[in-house]
Amino acid sequence: MPHPKALFFDIFGTVVDWRASIARQAQTLLTPLGKQLDWLAFADAWRDEYQPGMEAVRSGAIPFSRLDVIHRHNLERILPRFGLTDLDEAARVDLNLAWHRLDGWPDSEPGLLRLRRKFRIAPVSNGNIALMADLARRNAFIWDAILGAEVAGDYKPKPRVYLSACEAFGFAPGDCMMVAAHGGDLKAAKACGLQTAFIPRPNEHGPGKGEASPGVEVDYIAKDLLALADALGA
Amino acid sequence: MPHPKALFFDIFGTVVDWRASIARQAQTLLTPLGKQLDWLAFADAWRDEYQPGMEAVRSGAIPFSRLDVIHRHNLERILPRFGLTDLDEAARVDLNLAWHRLDGWPDSEPGLLRLRRKFRIAPVSNGNIALMADLARRNAFIWDAILGAEVAGDYKPKPRVYLSACEAFGFAPGDCMMVAAHGGDLKAAKACGLQTAFIPRPNEHGPGKGEASPGVEVDYIAKDLLALADALGA
Repeated sequence: MPHPKALFFDIFGTVVDWRASIARQAQTLLTPLGKQLDWLAFADAWRDEYQPGMEAVRSGAIPFSRLDVIHRHNLERILPRFGLTDLDEAARVDLNLAWHRLDGWPDSEPGLLRLRRKFRIAPVSNGNIALMADLARRNAFIWDAILGAEVAGDYKPKPRVYLSACEAFGFAPGDCMMVAAHGGDLKAAKACGLQTAFIPRPNEHGPGKGEASPGVEVDYIAKDLLALADALGA
Repeated sequence: MPHPKALFFDIFGTVVDWRASIARQAQTLLTPLGKQLDWLAFADAWRDEYQPGMEAVRSGAIPFSRLDVIHRHNLERILPRFGLTDLDEAARVDLNLAWHRLDGWPDSEPGLLRLRRKFRIAPVSNGNIALMADLARRNAFIWDAILGAEVAGDYKPKPRVYLSACEAFGFAPGDCMMVAAHGGDLKAAKACGLQTAFIPRPNEHGPGKGEASPGVEVDYIAKDLLALADALGA
């Protein structure tokens, strides 16, 4: 199989550590307001609302809404469980922007830098454009473009998201590779004809609670983005 | 008026010198094929087809087509006029990609670098995503995102293009500024509520044949992108 021309990256979990970052951000924002809670449990609870929130768009029940809007809706759902219903609007807006302030895994920035020397690279995430732009600034990621859900008008794993990314770069699906820490994402990309690479992030959901292996057939498995650069000669 | 949070850039003419670049690219590609022609006239002729080509999309006569497709269609229209009808498919494909290989004005790369320190920056061009990504690589432009026609699904000066760019960054139009060398672009942006900055590129269409002044009310006039950075404290 020839090397791809473009690499598409899942972001949440694959490139950035959303769980520890959301826990840190929530602690930083809410401690001064006198709140004490299980910060990691808060991050997990918020993330648990993620797939159901997007499913309403995927199913066609509601028109496409940016992930910022879905995150805010999901935040409202979990605030009562953590005794946070007295947060004012400004605090809720700021807390919702925690998703714009996630930190990359240690290999992400140097790995992407190497990979970009040889390939076009873009996030193909369910995160919206502003969210991706803020993560890029925070972590010094340099993308060729921000593709994914907002450009496609639907959410992964719908085929349209992968295919619209290939089309935006003008490449056939077989000339593009999806890189993700989630077998489901890669299974959907492969069904669209993309090459696939699995990056295990075994601690994504807490120690030992990430996907250690893809559980589906993939073209590459690399332990991190630097190892993927090695494997692809970048 | 408070400073904007995001700057949107017209690209063809404002950030890159399409005329000299297309002439150079065409000469480089076609001279080895034994062709001799007025290279600048060829560039002008190709560009003259630009607005009519997009108008079919704007009017709703045809569905949205990427600028690469429109450029190719326009190329076919002008080939007979320059005695180029014997070009094979590979040469036509390569020639069409000349638009992906345009060079920036001398102030563009350093100016954008300074402006990005203070503002989110994005192209809001009629060029498609792959074209913008290739120009960014060639000229070392670092954008926060690639916005514009392909993301909006329509062509400037339709309001949807400006407004969708503001929405992608999550900013009100008044917090965004359109930067262009063309009064018509700025007039349309201002009508959508954006701030505006005019950059004269007096030689865009040949010596003395660019717009020396905007001809419409604008918020800033700066002689180049470095002067705009000065004016905006970046």
